[in-house]
Amino acid sequence: MKKLLIASTSTIHGGSYLSYLSNELDEFFEKVETVLFVPFARPGGITHDAYTEIARKGFSSLGKNVVGLHEFRDVSKAIEEAEAIFVGGGNTFLLVSQLYKNEVMTPLRSAVLSGTPYLGSSAGSNITGLTMQTTNDMPIIYPPSFKTLGLVPFNLNPHYLDPDDQSTHMGETRETRIREFHQFNNQPVVGLREGSWLRVAGDEIVLKGKLSARIFEQGKDPYELSSGNLLEF
Amino acid sequence: MKKLLIASTSTIHGGSYLSYLSNELDEFFEKVETVLFVPFARPGGITHDAYTEIARKGFSSLGKNVVGLHEFRDVSKAIEEAEAIFVGGGNTFLLVSQLYKNEVMTPLRSAVLSGTPYLGSSAGSNITGLTMQTTNDMPIIYPPSFKTLGLVPFNLNPHYLDPDDQSTHMGETRETRIREFHQFNNQPVVGLREGSWLRVAGDEIVLKGKLSARIFEQGKDPYELSSGNLLEF
Repeated sequence: MKKLLIASTSTIHGGSYLSYLSNELDEFFEKVETVLFVPFARPGGITHDAYTEIARKGFSSLGKNVVGLHEFRDVSKAIEEAEAIFVGGGNTFLLVSQLYKNEVMTPLRSAVLSGTPYLGSSAGSNITGLTMQTTNDMPIIYPPSFKTLGLVPFNLNPHYLDPDDQSTHMGETRETRIREFHQFNNQPVVGLREGSWLRVAGDEIVLKGKLSARIFEQGKDPYELSSGNLLEF
Repeated sequence: MKKLLIASTSTIHGGSYLSYLSNELDEFFEKVETVLFVPFARPGGITHDAYTEIARKGFSSLGKNVVGLHEFRDVSKAIEEAEAIFVGGGNTFLLVSQLYKNEVMTPLRSAVLSGTPYLGSSAGSNITGLTMQTTNDMPIIYPPSFKTLGLVPFNLNPHYLDPDDQSTHMGETRETRIREFHQFNNQPVVGLREGSWLRVAGDEIVLKGKLSARIFEQGKDPYELSSGNLLEF
């Protein structure tokens, strides 16, 4: 049975790395000693080593070891043998490019479908959806495809931001962008606000965290899903 | 001699379509009767006809006619014979996909290099740069390439937004995103704030409008360029 935590962000304002998720992570990774970390999204362009060190610190308070995927020669085997996987945030175009380049998209999908627990934050959450086309990131690198893991039957928009009525800025709001997406694509989009996450157990998907999520379906007005509720389309 | 106006936006807060640019447009399009409008970026997913109508209204106060590129069977010929060209904003991924699909990237570049005046706003400005990789838009469609017109020797970031010190939102700032871009790409990036534009005459590029622009060069700290100054790398 597939088990995922799909988090909007790794860190909420005023908190430390993953701290807002610590209770959930304790339970989710209960039987896990070592988490395999995928550092490919490189937030702010930091190195794989530096990023893995951040994840290592974050997980040390939970009593878990962390190893970086970049430390393995046979990345496919590393994924296959992992007790649990965490794909960190950063730039989604870079992450997806690297997943294709290193040929880990398929083994990653297989591992999660066969029950390896998967934690994603931000870009690492984006790739659990059908495509990466509702990312907020800049296209700093050209990936061979926008198709992602398809572990859930929709797309994600992490760090979802409500339109600011007070703003004088004329750039598009997040809602406008997702409406444009639905001119060309028909999968639903789940806008996850900061501090929200989805817990996936098989086909059951629950929204967790303090805030509601904003759901966009093609041809419908967007609507809110309250925390604690099942996500169903 | 190439002549371009590269505007951050079509509309500033409280103004009407193109109104903040009207003096500049009067001069820039002085000898032009009819402007060829490229509506491919479809802001908010509106139709080519609806978008062309917006451009038509915006230009009517300047006494100019507007025709939409989508109204022509031979788009290549329409561009070649145009007195002036305006590429409107919207989604850059969509715009670039359509420009490649309709095979107008090359004729568009040739027309501007041979002197046809070119106005771009937002997405229409993005494509004057070397690549579209510093767009803020969502990747709602997969373009065959990120390469764009290369009419200026840098990339654009329209609607440039300064980091908000008061924000508790943990998504990346524009500056962080551009720093990530420079991990993998070496062309300079010009962050154009709302109400700013570049006027290009041959190799001379001047910043216009009330605000300064933020310039990002690989390996350097970002810096400000004041309005009225030449852009030189």
